[in-house]
Amino acid sequence: MTGWVQIAGLGPGDDALITPEVTAALAEATDVIGYIPYVARIAPHDGLTLHATDNRVELDRSRHALELAAAGRRVVVVSSGDPGVFAMAAAVFEAVEAGPETWRNLDIRVLPGITAMLAAAARVGAPLGHDFCAINLSDNLKPWALIEKRLRLAVEADFAMAFYNPRSKSRPEGFARTLDILNDACGDARPVIFARAVSTPDEVIRTVPLPEARPEMADMRTMVIVGSSQTRVIERDGAPIVYTPRSVPE
Amino acid sequence: MTGWVQIAGLGPGDDALITPEVTAALAEATDVIGYIPYVARIAPHDGLTLHATDNRVELDRSRHALELAAAGRRVVVVSSGDPGVFAMAAAVFEAVEAGPETWRNLDIRVLPGITAMLAAAARVGAPLGHDFCAINLSDNLKPWALIEKRLRLAVEADFAMAFYNPRSKSRPEGFARTLDILNDACGDARPVIFARAVSTPDEVIRTVPLPEARPEMADMRTMVIVGSSQTRVIERDGAPIVYTPRSVPE
Repeated sequence: MTGWVQIAGLGPGDDALITPEVTAALAEATDVIGYIPYVARIAPHDGLTLHATDNRVELDRSRHALELAAAGRRVVVVSSGDPGVFAMAAAVFEAVEAGPETWRNLDIRVLPGITAMLAAAARVGAPLGHDFCAINLSDNLKPWALIEKRLRLAVEADFAMAFYNPRSKSRPEGFARTLDILNDACGDARPVIFARAVSTPDEVIRTVPLPEARPEMADMRTMVIVGSSQTRVIERDGAPIVYTPRSVPE
Repeated sequence: MTGWVQIAGLGPGDDALITPEVTAALAEATDVIGYIPYVARIAPHDGLTLHATDNRVELDRSRHALELAAAGRRVVVVSSGDPGVFAMAAAVFEAVEAGPETWRNLDIRVLPGITAMLAAAARVGAPLGHDFCAINLSDNLKPWALIEKRLRLAVEADFAMAFYNPRSKSRPEGFARTLDILNDACGDARPVIFARAVSTPDEVIRTVPLPEARPEMADMRTMVIVGSSQTRVIERDGAPIVYTPRSVPE
């Protein structure tokens, strides 16, 4: 048996957002590896071993997947969202680069998925319909000063902004500082979208003007999207539509 | 019959990348509206009317969709990739905002899809595994000076960069200027990925160091991804792996 690793995106939560490509990979797998809540989404079947591990052990999990594939197993590493966006794909390639030479020539593929910012954007309209950036607000893996620098430059570039991991348990004050920086740099009332647990039964979406955004509106399961200076809000019955027009006038 | 509009992403080309949510919407539709090559991907069936229109008529197409829904039809507007990323969703909401008040309360939903940058990134590894931005390089709808400003700020922020529409027919010199700006601002040999027609039979992927990137490596069907200063290339048999590590050292 020739082993392989496929790093697959399960999307934000609803199984209707899992691509047929990922479903096919899971059907062929001998092993599924991932963070506990993501592995819990996989239906067990004969011949499939589920390996659920805790958070913050991404490199151990990656090495495990590569070792199994080198031994001939067919391994799916599951991520939520898209595996290439603040998820498992980069971790697996870090392990490949640091690992034995033979791992480089393993059959490793990344299977894209619906990443949280696109699912969240779809729920409110099209806030990412023009140029935008995606920033991981967790400072576990980078200096906080770099996050601040990126926030200020992103505002100067007038990007819409999608924030992953806005409030980490270990440093909850980071998101309060983010809002202070944005209020200072933007100086307007552009819409901020708090999208919690999108496409799951726990989904809650709220849009507020930037000056009214509060740190406690986000938790570990929330995706935050901040409009550009051009982003529009269309009021109507029920939740407003938020979108960023395609064009910027001369 | 209560009409609706669902703006659906067909992904980059391979039907295995279309979500079940989108497939279900198409099965319920009475009308499918979109750009000719995207409508051509939809299987005809009894009771379904296909409305294929040329490029650059996004607002006409949007109004048509809204009129049909207001008349009780079930309309799917198809986009390639994700409808919220440089695609039809923003156009539909522009039409809603400019249109009659009644359109605001139509049942309009956006169904996310696999956008080109995520499909392209998956093919080479994980170049968007850390903070990144997405820029539409077409200057049809915004001043070229704004594109230049965003490019320089994105380099200063050390984002990886995904470029949609790198070479428009009407202004092919824009991408040559983009490469000049990047070489000037980056001053290094970070990897540049040219991903053409990802997930279709015409797919071609090429990775070159920035100083070797040439304008003619991109055409209308190419997605371009430029690494950050931290992006790594793992050489191996066959195409290299390109990924951006999750962490940035202090």
